[in-house]
Amino acid sequence: MNLTELHPIAEKIFDDVRALSFDGVGVTRESYGAGETATADYLRAFASGHGLEHADDRAANVVFRQPGGDAAGPVVWTGSHIDSVPQGGNFDGLAGVVAGLLCLVDRQRSGRAAPLPLEVVAFRGEESAWFGKAYMGSGALFGKMTPADLELKQRTSGETLAACMARAGADVDAIRAQQPLFDLKRVKAYLELHIEQGPVMVARELPLAVVSGIRGNVRHNRVLCHGDAQHSGVVPRWLRHDAMFAVADLIMRIDDHWRVLLERGTDLVVTTGIVGTDPAEHSISRIPGLVSFSLEARSRSRDTLEAFYQLVQAECSAIARERGVRFEFDRRLLSEPATMDPAICAMLALACAEQGVAHDTIPSGAGHDASLFANAGIASGMLFVRNQNGSHNPHEAMDLDDFMRGVAVMGAAFDRIGGGHG
Amino acid sequence: MNLTELHPIAEKIFDDVRALSFDGVGVTRESYGAGETATADYLRAFASGHGLEHADDRAANVVFRQPGGDAAGPVVWTGSHIDSVPQGGNFDGLAGVVAGLLCLVDRQRSGRAAPLPLEVVAFRGEESAWFGKAYMGSGALFGKMTPADLELKQRTSGETLAACMARAGADVDAIRAQQPLFDLKRVKAYLELHIEQGPVMVARELPLAVVSGIRGNVRHNRVLCHGDAQHSGVVPRWLRHDAMFAVADLIMRIDDHWRVLLERGTDLVVTTGIVGTDPAEHSISRIPGLVSFSLEARSRSRDTLEAFYQLVQAECSAIARERGVRFEFDRRLLSEPATMDPAICAMLALACAEQGVAHDTIPSGAGHDASLFANAGIASGMLFVRNQNGSHNPHEAMDLDDFMRGVAVMGAAFDRIGGGHG
Repeated sequence: MNLTELHPIAEKIFDDVRALSFDGVGVTRESYGAGETATADYLRAFASGHGLEHADDRAANVVFRQPGGDAAGPVVWTGSHIDSVPQGGNFDGLAGVVAGLLCLVDRQRSGRAAPLPLEVVAFRGEESAWFGKAYMGSGALFGKMTPADLELKQRTSGETLAACMARAGADVDAIRAQQPLFDLKRVKAYLELHIEQGPVMVARELPLAVVSGIRGNVRHNRVLCHGDAQHSGVVPRWLRHDAMFAVADLIMRIDDHWRVLLERGTDLVVTTGIVGTDPAEHSISRIPGLVSFSLEARSRSRDTLEAFYQLVQAECSAIARERGVRFEFDRRLLSEPATMDPAICAMLALACAEQGVAHDTIPSGAGHDASLFANAGIASGMLFVRNQNGSHNPHEAMDLDDFMRGVAVMGAAFDRIGGGHG
Repeated sequence: MNLTELHPIAEKIFDDVRALSFDGVGVTRESYGAGETATADYLRAFASGHGLEHADDRAANVVFRQPGGDAAGPVVWTGSHIDSVPQGGNFDGLAGVVAGLLCLVDRQRSGRAAPLPLEVVAFRGEESAWFGKAYMGSGALFGKMTPADLELKQRTSGETLAACMARAGADVDAIRAQQPLFDLKRVKAYLELHIEQGPVMVARELPLAVVSGIRGNVRHNRVLCHGDAQHSGVVPRWLRHDAMFAVADLIMRIDDHWRVLLERGTDLVVTTGIVGTDPAEHSISRIPGLVSFSLEARSRSRDTLEAFYQLVQAECSAIARERGVRFEFDRRLLSEPATMDPAICAMLALACAEQGVAHDTIPSGAGHDASLFANAGIASGMLFVRNQNGSHNPHEAMDLDDFMRGVAVMGAAFDRIGGGHG
């Protein structure tokens, strides 16, 4: 693989896509919205310019391949997503798509033979930030989007997911039927390169890491705590039903349980990413009568997720009783934890070793489209690239040299899968 | 006083002003904005129609009087405010102005002599909901609005208080000079009728109550807690700087201190009326990097306010250290507690007794324009009228019969102040 030739191509794609989705602070590529569609258009033009073919699948994801392949024959898939959170970073998702495209360009240029052809999927709608649900593009492909999912509302426009997907070109009726929209048996493996979104690889000085598994999560997008809005000066503490004090109480009880569970060795992270009193009625001099908040727990263990969820429900009941408030939960959303294929993990580790790159095997704290493939029984693997400052923020900083090492490792794995020892 | 004649007049004013400021849920009379100005216009027309005079003072408050009086001679003032919180109730503030106007109408119709003439002030800008500061209209009159106060921004339009006051007709240059805009010595007493905003009088079946004093408060309109925004799945608990968990921690520490102080017999209420993660960057899958909140403590004791404030500062320092966050406070605002004049309290209590109305003497948990008069050395008094469902919400429910009893008591007090035994 000619990394010297591919390096400036990678740099140009990242720069161009950043520029077309820059929002003044970071990048904004809304799921099934303007920034994501502009990115898809750019990548289609890039592929055509390098002699590659592209076609949208029935969920409006974009699939890239070399021309002249067998559309029904066995294949290796790679890819990632092209949307971002609001004011997000340029590499989360995009890096995996670019890595796949560079491998296709390399094969097209070199004419090199491989056991299996490679297809690159640019997924739409991976981020939950826009509709409160993750893996929408890959979920649609697997027939896992329910009619209720399709009625979820876009965070700013309020439009339904169904309407936004249809505008992007998806076959919403087919998705609503909840049948897989592709031949699962045809896909022999799914590999995904992604930036690490946590601080571990920087701290441990690892340019690359092989992912052992992906944390699942249980979520509520919007829990309401109903109290009693009253003038702040005149209601004594014993007569108050302060929704904000109740939610603070819940968060501190969650924090206490979390700490104890960690000390017992449980894998768990908990976040209340969106919390707020009601702008329509809150004021400095009014006891909050309504607070809304999101709640998310992540773990590599489904059991831990369920046990923690029950603990939260019990605390809500206790607080409701003690403080005279009422909690109202929206639909519970669950993403299953996933385990990566040991043979693919070993191939990726071998390729790292052959390239002389320091690496280790670590779990993924964030969810990825790869989890759907793994949980559908398709052999899956992921490669992390070192990245400063985390993700979901404008300060992501992946070193392009680290990225190119990752491209080389992915290319080596693609050349091996489906061969005698695959 | 002919209550039978005045009753339908009161009913019509309350109905008309409710209709002109109805917002679909409650009433909205923005300080120095549309709803407040429409109310002022209505009351001016009402006064003219009943043979009364009116004039705006230099702070854009409206003053009503009988014609032919001595503009420089000694006088009794009564009044209250004509603004409301967003989606507020119809009686908070308006009731005191209507009570004063009815007493003027009664004097004008009866031609009855009194030791001192009566003037009714309809204050603008009493509610802190709009600019984050209370008593703006009365504060301007007393020369207590600082240049910094005048730069406060309107909660929705972002316009400065100075601009909004000027549009309402106030002399902003005179206000900025921080000199009293009226002759304090001329005002021999200030009396204010107001609905009770708490649940005490309903619980104790008291139609009227004499107010002994008014709680002061210490406030921050907007405290920022700065943490570190990161992907929610990938940062372990020990590396997190979660601004929302930090604020929840603070609220629970405040709640603990508050409970202990109450058990020691201290007078205190504490409220965080506005709390929220940052809508520009928050998402379900991001650790909150910024939370803003308002903080208010109220007490009849200045010492308690100061001691509690120091306690909150100490807890913020502890949380900042423990959770790796940073608290940033805006300007501290203090409203002094106030004590009502014992002689006026006795006159009001006597008038209640003479009218055969059950009553008692209670403190006011909410602040009122009367506190500025009391703290400026003007003999002041307040009368509370029973009111269901608290205030600062659309469900206020003052019984008009209770209100008319209050008008009669106020009228009797006005007729007595300045007389031999005043």
